[in-house]
Amino acid sequence: MKQIDGWLTAPKGFIASGVRAGIKASGNHDVAVIMSTVVAATGAVFTQNKICAAPVLVSREVNKRPDAQAIVVNSGCANACTGEQGLIDAKAMQEEAGKCLNIEPASIFVCSTGVIGQFLPMDKVHRGIVAAAANMSTTEGESAALAIQTTDTFVKKVAYEFEIGGKMAKIAGIAKGAGMIHPNMATMLTYITTDAAVAPDLLKRMVKAVADKSFNMVVVDGDTSTNDSMIVLANGLAENEIVFSEEHPDYPIFYQALLQTAQDLAKMIAHDGEGATKFLEVNVIGAASFADAKAAAMAIAKSPLVKTAFFGEDPNWGRVLCAAGYSGAAMDANHTNLSIGGRRLVENGMNVNVPLEELQPIMSEHDISMTIDMAVGNETATVWTCDFSYDYVKINGEYHT
Amino acid sequence: MKQIDGWLTAPKGFIASGVRAGIKASGNHDVAVIMSTVVAATGAVFTQNKICAAPVLVSREVNKRPDAQAIVVNSGCANACTGEQGLIDAKAMQEEAGKCLNIEPASIFVCSTGVIGQFLPMDKVHRGIVAAAANMSTTEGESAALAIQTTDTFVKKVAYEFEIGGKMAKIAGIAKGAGMIHPNMATMLTYITTDAAVAPDLLKRMVKAVADKSFNMVVVDGDTSTNDSMIVLANGLAENEIVFSEEHPDYPIFYQALLQTAQDLAKMIAHDGEGATKFLEVNVIGAASFADAKAAAMAIAKSPLVKTAFFGEDPNWGRVLCAAGYSGAAMDANHTNLSIGGRRLVENGMNVNVPLEELQPIMSEHDISMTIDMAVGNETATVWTCDFSYDYVKINGEYHT
Repeated sequence: MKQIDGWLTAPKGFIASGVRAGIKASGNHDVAVIMSTVVAATGAVFTQNKICAAPVLVSREVNKRPDAQAIVVNSGCANACTGEQGLIDAKAMQEEAGKCLNIEPASIFVCSTGVIGQFLPMDKVHRGIVAAAANMSTTEGESAALAIQTTDTFVKKVAYEFEIGGKMAKIAGIAKGAGMIHPNMATMLTYITTDAAVAPDLLKRMVKAVADKSFNMVVVDGDTSTNDSMIVLANGLAENEIVFSEEHPDYPIFYQALLQTAQDLAKMIAHDGEGATKFLEVNVIGAASFADAKAAAMAIAKSPLVKTAFFGEDPNWGRVLCAAGYSGAAMDANHTNLSIGGRRLVENGMNVNVPLEELQPIMSEHDISMTIDMAVGNETATVWTCDFSYDYVKINGEYHT
Repeated sequence: MKQIDGWLTAPKGFIASGVRAGIKASGNHDVAVIMSTVVAATGAVFTQNKICAAPVLVSREVNKRPDAQAIVVNSGCANACTGEQGLIDAKAMQEEAGKCLNIEPASIFVCSTGVIGQFLPMDKVHRGIVAAAANMSTTEGESAALAIQTTDTFVKKVAYEFEIGGKMAKIAGIAKGAGMIHPNMATMLTYITTDAAVAPDLLKRMVKAVADKSFNMVVVDGDTSTNDSMIVLANGLAENEIVFSEEHPDYPIFYQALLQTAQDLAKMIAHDGEGATKFLEVNVIGAASFADAKAAAMAIAKSPLVKTAFFGEDPNWGRVLCAAGYSGAAMDANHTNLSIGGRRLVENGMNVNVPLEELQPIMSEHDISMTIDMAVGNETATVWTCDFSYDYVKINGEYHT
């Protein structure tokens, strides 16, 4: 598996386009269309929030199909908390895209991201879809990626080439998300395209499993949005023998490609947490169950006290232990160990008194990893997050409705 | 029931003292002893954190007794994550206080608050206990209150006088806590003294019930500390007929006095959230169960996105709805209503488009109340919290281990 340069259009048969439709006040790209020239197997997962946006309701229907062919998306307005009108608008996006692309509307996913509680400016959205659809090509992957961004400070993309069943295949992904990132698909959009051939029912299972090991392990602020969507399209144009089950010999190859792509994007999202100055990896080991390991890692990653301590470059291991302690996960407080940046700070529940000057170089790194041993079992989990800075407060205090 | 001026020593038979023992680098008060001149019925609740401090282990044993007589406490060092030595030190505090006060050590609660992972400077602690015990009086309530503070910006105290069974009784409370405040007794110390007569087993049940409607409904940052303790001493010197069960005619009077005292202190803690510029009351109504109502209110109160929006005086109701939506509580998204400061912003799940200039006066208030109707039942819950400001990040980024 080799990392390559490229956008969603790197795998065979994918074209895309992003345009400036005037929905964003900034005038930046805000409508995109992504499409496979042939029908593709699809798998998707969506926000678990009980308040879910209209486009999510529409896209869930698309995901009931074995295959789909395109994604239409806008940024600048989330089309959430918009009732019946919101649903009408989301369906109109689907219809318009279908007409322009000359494909079945029901095979088109619909996404929106941005401010909650406002109706879509449908005239602008329509014009944007028409313009994007007229400009579809293999070289417009970047404009499509730009059109899904909101407060992102950099474009999140990754692409790999890999051999499967004697053929060369590609997989590519883009993601949007900075604030409001949290398990269960927090304001995050991610699209993954591949020309590998995989059976639709298997792909649906794999997307769920992969989301649980990538995007659902990222926390920025613990908030889960109304619009999160992860959509995978696999069009089979690489002509490998179709991977039809977990028992197929090529299954591990495709699973690894999908997982790597998703984890790369997930980590980029944590790197781009609103106002973040640090990227933190929280490893929990020795837990009684995966659920416990994840709960402890999440509690640490979500703790504002932990996050501000790392912002202040303070090795405040007490806050880390404390968060594990209130997570509800089983732990043996008298045998727990904690390391930060590979340096053991707590052994058998007690401070080992590492001199502060030895820790300062570790705490001043941008990427910091910590490992806590719950000392009660063998299960592990890893969560990625970032620190809380003045700028987090600034960005989110000043981002007005 | 009438609010009066006074410290823990306002009820008959209580004496106290706080001294500067040099544990805090600031040189402020850091050791206190609080005592009833006669044995008192007691009830207490402690942190649910699996990493709990040594003094909590000692105090839990005291709470197994029907009665107790004193509390010894230090600030500046939490005696948490200190293993066997921590337990030896906590017991030594209890022994020393017993010797100095000439009462049974096993009847003395022990508390510590401050930095985690350091051993108590026992020479200073011992000298502090000796000095405090030598200075016990009814006029030293304030010094005792000062000695439990850490990052608090004001002293939290309240006292009431009330008639019960034809006698006049008093109840008084102090609390410490600003950061790390969260349900299940987060770094919070609260002591309540009363001269009312109440049976120990009943008092224990009442303290639990009252904690659930007061301190466990306060959130500052969602972190739950290792040292939280709420301790009530009731010495009966008011000579009312002892309240021995929930069926006793005077039960509602005493319950109300205890609840009011605890809720007053709880709200003061939210007011004093680290760096807080706003006091927020989150009311959830129309929930399917109390657990659901509390879960939704807590999710809103803990959301960094909600908290920074209020700091920015932005009526970002989308973030409030969104937090309720991911809380796991049942809600009818198409019938939910939301009001802020009495102004309806969302009706049947949709923006009612109140002009921003009408909301600005509400959002610029210091105390802001919001009510969300989940539209699925009749249960309610209220949680108190504060906003997240630049200063929260500053205080917690710069508070070094």
